[in-house]
Amino acid sequence: MKQLLFLFLYLPVISFAQKSLPTYVCPPCGACDTLVFHQPGVCTACGMLLVNKDSLDKPATTVCFYLYDGVEVLDFAGPMEVFAHAGFKVFTVAKKKAPLVSQRILTIVPDYSIKNAPPANILAFFGGDEEASANDPEVMAWIHSRDKVTDTYFSVCTGAFILGRAGLLDNQTVTTFHSRIADLQRAVPKAKVLEKVRYIDNGRVITTAGISAGIDGALHLVAKLRGEEVAALVAKQMEYDKYVPGQGMVVAHP
Amino acid sequence: MKQLLFLFLYLPVISFAQKSLPTYVCPPCGACDTLVFHQPGVCTACGMLLVNKDSLDKPATTVCFYLYDGVEVLDFAGPMEVFAHAGFKVFTVAKKKAPLVSQRILTIVPDYSIKNAPPANILAFFGGDEEASANDPEVMAWIHSRDKVTDTYFSVCTGAFILGRAGLLDNQTVTTFHSRIADLQRAVPKAKVLEKVRYIDNGRVITTAGISAGIDGALHLVAKLRGEEVAALVAKQMEYDKYVPGQGMVVAHP
Repeated sequence: MKQLLFLFLYLPVISFAQKSLPTYVCPPCGACDTLVFHQPGVCTACGMLLVNKDSLDKPATTVCFYLYDGVEVLDFAGPMEVFAHAGFKVFTVAKKKAPLVSQRILTIVPDYSIKNAPPANILAFFGGDEEASANDPEVMAWIHSRDKVTDTYFSVCTGAFILGRAGLLDNQTVTTFHSRIADLQRAVPKAKVLEKVRYIDNGRVITTAGISAGIDGALHLVAKLRGEEVAALVAKQMEYDKYVPGQGMVVAHP
Repeated sequence: MKQLLFLFLYLPVISFAQKSLPTYVCPPCGACDTLVFHQPGVCTACGMLLVNKDSLDKPATTVCFYLYDGVEVLDFAGPMEVFAHAGFKVFTVAKKKAPLVSQRILTIVPDYSIKNAPPANILAFFGGDEEASANDPEVMAWIHSRDKVTDTYFSVCTGAFILGRAGLLDNQTVTTFHSRIADLQRAVPKAKVLEKVRYIDNGRVITTAGISAGIDGALHLVAKLRGEEVAALVAKQMEYDKYVPGQGMVVAHP
């Protein structure tokens, strides 16, 4: 009886302890999916950022990277690295499912064309030779067709010109590559275009400054969606100790 | 006669003035190759970093990026962006000329296989799932075959394990990804492996810390080969205002 009373008294504590002990696992990579951890951090086997096991039951945040011939390599690779480490599901799309060349160097085969790309929570555009995409009615129609399934529009560098042509920067506070600030203001007179800011978050539309600023904009988006602790862990994993949380601007729209 | 004397007196000055006025042009990109500038900076038409016209007569520094299935995307994309803006000629090589997938996301078609890749001044290796390459006798034989034509070996992150297996890190001071420091020391007992350093330059062998540190290592190499002014211009162009010249370590070998 005394033993039973003991059990009765301690049961809620044991139960609470079990409930409060979160379980962290490596995101599915095929190599170390059976390992279980009880603290956040990185996988001791493969170095990937651990995720809370509960979060695996929910669909992962998806990110569509729109690429094109002449896209600047670091513009997209920085955010790709950030989102991958945060456990987001990233895929690439181009107008056609045919090889394209980034930075006149890197030949890339996109996962999808705009005709068969699945929806994504985040639709991302990058700079470089963006003019052809910004002037392409089919690309514009594809962007408009995604309106209801897209939570966030994200651009790096002159990728903002694509969002601008699609009408998505109207009445937004935005930025772009340092030498194209005045051009973007002319292209999107209804936007407020700012210089010398690393990224600007309007809620649904986030634009960043040029090239390497995409890393900071992506980390900001991770902090916003998964918490500052996760963004800090991603930055640490990438050895991006130059990450300064809150270095950009968040615009509150009434 | 007076006119002739005038010409004679001023000829050296005119000649000197012509000689001392350097001419800068946009690196050949097909879009704005006819523009000429008289100050260093960026092309007003396409934003590329200008190069001294005299340097175009010399062969450009070439960089071979060795890629493989599972290579970390920012590991190579950061240096690719840096070297491209510095006017280096960059190409990609894999064991076979077949598509490979970086970061389990980005499908890349390499320019060459190790059977037909041209020589390069800089041979560069990157981290990720580098084990297969480090354990591949054909890859090792290819690296050894390039000994006489390679000026600099460059690695980012765990790309150092490939250089280590090739014997290139023996008697060198080196670094790698923060969680693999002890592993690299075990793998290359003849090297001195340091942690918490952004890059280490031994003269012919440069290794960097993880992922984003490749950007800093590449900027260091640009500063070394083309001057700190050019590296600073590249960093400015990339909006990488977080670049700190001399943030790594340069080892003087006797």
